[in-house]
Amino acid sequence: MLLIADNLHIMNPVVAKALQARDPLPFKKIAEHCTKVNAYAMDINLGPLRNNVEEVITFVIEAVQDSFSGRLVLDSIQAEVIAAGIKICKQPPIINGFSLEEGKLQTILPLAAEYQADIVGFLIDEQGKIPSGTEERLAVASRLVAAAEERGVPPEKIIIDPVLVPLTWQDGTHYNRALIETIQMLDQVFGQPIRTIAGLSNIGADAPARAKRQTAEAAFIFMLAASHLDYILMNVAQESNLTALNLSQLLLAEKVFAWQEV
Amino acid sequence: MLLIADNLHIMNPVVAKALQARDPLPFKKIAEHCTKVNAYAMDINLGPLRNNVEEVITFVIEAVQDSFSGRLVLDSIQAEVIAAGIKICKQPPIINGFSLEEGKLQTILPLAAEYQADIVGFLIDEQGKIPSGTEERLAVASRLVAAAEERGVPPEKIIIDPVLVPLTWQDGTHYNRALIETIQMLDQVFGQPIRTIAGLSNIGADAPARAKRQTAEAAFIFMLAASHLDYILMNVAQESNLTALNLSQLLLAEKVFAWQEV
Repeated sequence: MLLIADNLHIMNPVVAKALQARDPLPFKKIAEHCTKVNAYAMDINLGPLRNNVEEVITFVIEAVQDSFSGRLVLDSIQAEVIAAGIKICKQPPIINGFSLEEGKLQTILPLAAEYQADIVGFLIDEQGKIPSGTEERLAVASRLVAAAEERGVPPEKIIIDPVLVPLTWQDGTHYNRALIETIQMLDQVFGQPIRTIAGLSNIGADAPARAKRQTAEAAFIFMLAASHLDYILMNVAQESNLTALNLSQLLLAEKVFAWQEV
Repeated sequence: MLLIADNLHIMNPVVAKALQARDPLPFKKIAEHCTKVNAYAMDINLGPLRNNVEEVITFVIEAVQDSFSGRLVLDSIQAEVIAAGIKICKQPPIINGFSLEEGKLQTILPLAAEYQADIVGFLIDEQGKIPSGTEERLAVASRLVAAAEERGVPPEKIIIDPVLVPLTWQDGTHYNRALIETIQMLDQVFGQPIRTIAGLSNIGADAPARAKRQTAEAAFIFMLAASHLDYILMNVAQESNLTALNLSQLLLAEKVFAWQEV
């Protein structure tokens, strides 16, 4: 399971302030931390951009790439933000992302075909709903892959995100249980390896205490790793997340096991 | 994932001493603790018994059943020990267990047919070897289920144990990774639900510090729960194990989620 940092997000006040001031230093600092913790990629989410799209995205990506040489995940609902970003990425970018919603199919998905880029496909149906059960999820996954193939994006380029939901949602734990089953079954259902991604921060956003959120996130790291999730998107400033990820890699033969590393 | 206590084991010095002295009190105490932690079943392993088999097993089971009303797992390589135990169990017992080794097929497996009892089937091949990869394991599982059916034990009565190995074995983490994959795939491979069990204590027997062993065991509890293991056999005197099991049940919708329970 590879690590993708979700820290460069407009909801992070440090990011919002630095973007406003066009101060590259906070971006470099986040990027340096991602390098230090061996992140495979960094997700970049600047929220909706109204003006100077190309200038803004160029400023951020250049600041990041000064201190981080991994891949970038271009996370936006605006095709023009993603298109502007793709052109200046030094490593092959990941587009984040599309779903079966018509707008996404028409504006975001074509970028993956045009630039032959990897793209995240959310298991969200035509009406913008997250399916609840495993069967429904697998059906949405089939339609998603078919829609991509029709538009020139092969399954090898798709990274499926079955969308973790907050634990306190109505039936939230049933949703997340179905998500785990879905991740385990995708390869067999498609008869070929299909990559998967999950965003961890969603599950505990409303936790009453930081320690409880950390405990739940660490447990999910083990559960997702055992399900052979390919990419985990998470807060890399949280030490307990990194500890759990490292342990999962030791236990699942992704690193050489030794008790002193536990 | 249901809890089976492995504490009533001859390797536990308290058990060995109490058995020698025919002192029922330590057995009752273990049984009371199992009741307190809501164990689904208790594994009873008294090691090889040479004399007074019926007297010994009756003494232990009666002591246990005074304080624990769940199921008992009769864990022995001696058919006569299991047979003696079956007769006095108040709840349907689980026989632990058989494998493809000829001796086990001829002596232990027939007890499951005779008493229509659940039986643990170890994924160990005809030569007594644990298969390494997932494909090999699934092949052994097929032969195991077929051997049982031939002798009148249907798949519904079998609980497959793919055998966790110590993390420090040569390729131990590869073995355990394949075990997790196997558990996830069994239902699909057999086209029907097949129950599974795993014994947690094996993985960390040689850990250099108790805390490290606890950390590894807790991680495995999450990984096995996410794989839909049916029964986990573990040390219920270790609080960290119970905490991890409870959290896995909350997160996977086996209990009603609330942050105050985390």
